[in-house]
Amino acid sequence: MQNNEKTNNGGTYKKAIYSGTFDPITNGHMDIVRRATSIFEEVVVAVAKSERKNPMFSHEQRVNFAKEATKDLEKVTVIGFDTLLVELATQMKINTIIRGLRAVSDFEYELQMGYANSSINKDLETLYLMPTLKNAFVSSTIVRELIVFNGSFCHLVPKEVLKCM
Amino acid sequence: MQNNEKTNNGGTYKKAIYSGTFDPITNGHMDIVRRATSIFEEVVVAVAKSERKNPMFSHEQRVNFAKEATKDLEKVTVIGFDTLLVELATQMKINTIIRGLRAVSDFEYELQMGYANSSINKDLETLYLMPTLKNAFVSSTIVRELIVFNGSFCHLVPKEVLKCM
Amino acid sequence: MQNNEKTNNGGTYKKAIYSGTFDPITNGHMDIVRRATSIFEEVVVAVAKSERKNPMFSHEQRVNFAKEATKDLEKVTVIGFDTLLVELATQMKINTIIRGLRAVSDFEYELQMGYANSSINKDLETLYLMPTLKNAFVSSTIVRELIVFNGSFCHLVPKEVLKCM
Amino acid sequence: MQNNEKTNNGGTYKKAIYSGTFDPITNGHMDIVRRATSIFEEVVVAVAKSERKNPMFSHEQRVNFAKEATKDLEKVTVIGFDTLLVELATQMKINTIIRGLRAVSDFEYELQMGYANSSINKDLETLYLMPTLKNAFVSSTIVRELIVFNGSFCHLVPKEVLKCM
Amino acid sequence: MQNNEKTNNGGTYKKAIYSGTFDPITNGHMDIVRRATSIFEEVVVAVAKSERKNPMFSHEQRVNFAKEATKDLEKVTVIGFDTLLVELATQMKINTIIRGLRAVSDFEYELQMGYANSSINKDLETLYLMPTLKNAFVSSTIVRELIVFNGSFCHLVPKEVLKCM
Amino acid sequence: MQNNEKTNNGGTYKKAIYSGTFDPITNGHMDIVRRATSIFEEVVVAVAKSERKNPMFSHEQRVNFAKEATKDLEKVTVIGFDTLLVELATQMKINTIIRGLRAVSDFEYELQMGYANSSINKDLETLYLMPTLKNAFVSSTIVRELIVFNGSFCHLVPKEVLKCM
Repeated sequence: MQNNEKTNNGGTYKKAIYSGTFDPITNGHMDIVRRATSIFEEVVVAVAKSERKNPMFSHEQRVNFAKEATKDLEKVTVIGFDTLLVELATQMKINTIIRGLRAVSDFEYELQMGYANSSINKDLETLYLMPTLKNAFVSSTIVRELIVFNGSFCHLVPKEVLKCM
Repeated sequence: MQNNEKTNNGGTYKKAIYSGTFDPITNGHMDIVRRATSIFEEVVVAVAKSERKNPMFSHEQRVNFAKEATKDLEKVTVIGFDTLLVELATQMKINTIIRGLRAVSDFEYELQMGYANSSINKDLETLYLMPTLKNAFVSSTIVRELIVFNGSFCHLVPKEVLKCM
Repeated sequence: MQNNEKTNNGGTYKKAIYSGTFDPITNGHMDIVRRATSIFEEVVVAVAKSERKNPMFSHEQRVNFAKEATKDLEKVTVIGFDTLLVELATQMKINTIIRGLRAVSDFEYELQMGYANSSINKDLETLYLMPTLKNAFVSSTIVRELIVFNGSFCHLVPKEVLKCM
Repeated sequence: MQNNEKTNNGGTYKKAIYSGTFDPITNGHMDIVRRATSIFEEVVVAVAKSERKNPMFSHEQRVNFAKEATKDLEKVTVIGFDTLLVELATQMKINTIIRGLRAVSDFEYELQMGYANSSINKDLETLYLMPTLKNAFVSSTIVRELIVFNGSFCHLVPKEVLKCM
Repeated sequence: MQNNEKTNNGGTYKKAIYSGTFDPITNGHMDIVRRATSIFEEVVVAVAKSERKNPMFSHEQRVNFAKEATKDLEKVTVIGFDTLLVELATQMKINTIIRGLRAVSDFEYELQMGYANSSINKDLETLYLMPTLKNAFVSSTIVRELIVFNGSFCHLVPKEVLKCM
Repeated sequence: MQNNEKTNNGGTYKKAIYSGTFDPITNGHMDIVRRATSIFEEVVVAVAKSERKNPMFSHEQRVNFAKEATKDLEKVTVIGFDTLLVELATQMKINTIIRGLRAVSDFEYELQMGYANSSINKDLETLYLMPTLKNAFVSSTIVRELIVFNGSFCHLVPKEVLKCM
């Protein structure tokens, strides 16, 4: 599989996919998205339906939040999906998966998933990015906790998402 | 800082730097190098002098090993350096650093170095790659241990390096 | 925010809050409570309602267990709460939170929560204590598992709690 | 407690128990089972009912999968159970528990359970084995995920299990 | 052992000790010192000689750096020592040890040392504090690396220490 | 490779090797040795020369300590060695290696070494044991630290070793 079109000066046009439940999308996610756009020509933010995780926001809401949050980023497309990430990537002819790493426990799970994915499609490459320090503690779990208890969470999610809520 | 020249079709010409002591370069390192070349147009393998680590092989030898091991990879350049990685990257106008991640302890050190580097040059981006499963246990430390005790290590280093030893 | 009244000899009167689901309170928790009382003049054990965790014991029962277990500790008060810990602490004019650390996974979650809390109230200080060695493996999860299967758990919870069950 | 019968040449007849939810049994589990049989004369694969984990396959199915997968391994017996592992081991006069270790998070949980178990029965010994490298990423969780989304999982479970599904 | 004098209003006068090699003292250390002073009436910064670690700065220099950095903090005293921390604490009639926690690897070492210390003096209490987020990556190791390679490290150490260098 | 002689009742005579620097042997090591003897007919304690680790005690002393400490354990033999563990095991026709696990960092190193070893000799099996809770913090490093500073370490090493010092 090869997702890169050669360009005139030897550069290539590269795409990557960044998937997650995004329940909701946070400043930590946005940080990873922006970093990915500095490396790739096109970044697909793929919002998983994740029914079994019993998300706080509906799939439609979560896709909308991500669309609003990234509407000013030209290189970014947002889609919803309800399949295996490996299959989605194969269908879209993308062979680079972007993952955010925050903690050791993330790291181990990601490592296992990465090896599982490449056991299914050996051309799939996984790239790990870490959020900037100031977003290193931000997670959707913490944002949901703050929402449930009416705590202040404006500093943790993109302002476009706040408007939609 | 911007290291990417725009190309005619909107793609860009991107460079990344992959640094280490490479004492000696292993199949695990080669794995990361090859993955990096599938994402970047140019990958600089930067061999640190690392005198304080008291390496088994001289700086010159380690640079040569890396050159031999990568001589068939068109996109790869090998250099030796004895400065801060951040400075080297700045001088070379490269703002993407490639790191290999193998274990949790790697992960934590890398995270700290990544934040330290970006506290010095905020444009520096660090990308983490994991080796393929079959190379996940290969490290220079284990290779050196095998060399000291006359153990078999041919399956752990590139064959070009074996010839030089 | 300042929760400490100056005393005649320059000492201060300090309070700390130790929160959790306590489902049920164990000897591991009691260990942390006792250690906290050797440092603070007043320790508030705050039992979270934690409905989403679907606890084995009702909120009322868990508060009672904690009250019984600590009734001989003069410096300890037990309360139930169903809000954000940060808000509870602010309302009670307490700026020190006590957390028990047992394992690496605890550590990472605690670190994230600590940074999230201080992003909301920068005066909040989190202190981490580790249980004594002999209680290092005791957790509410293990106690509940033993209860479900009629296993012996008397050596893991305070005797006052056993009486209430 | 002593589960070992002395034999004529000073060797002993030793049994071990390997328990889990096995939802379903994977090549990673089979790897541990085979390794255990190279050390013990008899290995009991004990399939926990684990109702609270809400397994994908029924207890009966999971026991059958394990039986099919191990039918050619003479030293292996499969049983279902719905009690504490410590009690099961005591009843069967087995004092060695086999556990597979894959990741740091496994390691910590196992350590806590090991200490909890030996606080109940001090003669219980826990032995940890790691899967071969090629099975290091295989887990029941990943297999279930692949099943839900119609992904290919044939390379991750024993072929005898595939036939039963 | 009891290091707390009762005061008129029931408060107590409490001391804690914060030890390390401080090679050199960083903004991360200062962060922990300041937090400790908000809980204790007196904080002793104890600079270990640590000859075997082969420090970059002499013991005298490191003590001076710490003195300069804390000269405006009334509650803080700086001393050098070349003995076991447990003994120093016992001699000074202090039974609370302060430790900074930054990473999982710190955590494990600290846990072992904490249990070793309390096996020698069971009254010793260890309190763990985490640095503020912006100092979470700062370590003496990184500062020394920057010094060796003439990198910029002014943002990582107290300005009083910069003057002394 | 097969190190097990079949016995009359189907049991086998099994050997295992437990290697390390043992600088010096501690109660934590002894704990692992005793556990190993409850599973294996013969346990070889193999003391590595480990010159590069610059041990506190000479190779001869460390072998003697281990011999004294295990002299009442019939199934245990002590040897010194200065080669690769894999080779030693192969020469002695032993295919089970015993390792003690105490912390997450141990775990990761052990995992890498285990995979490296089995890449050289695929019949080598590595078994991991954890020390009892009360010895979980004991390490040779801590004992050496106590020796250097004249601290009390009698509770951490076998009494036979104390006599030799």
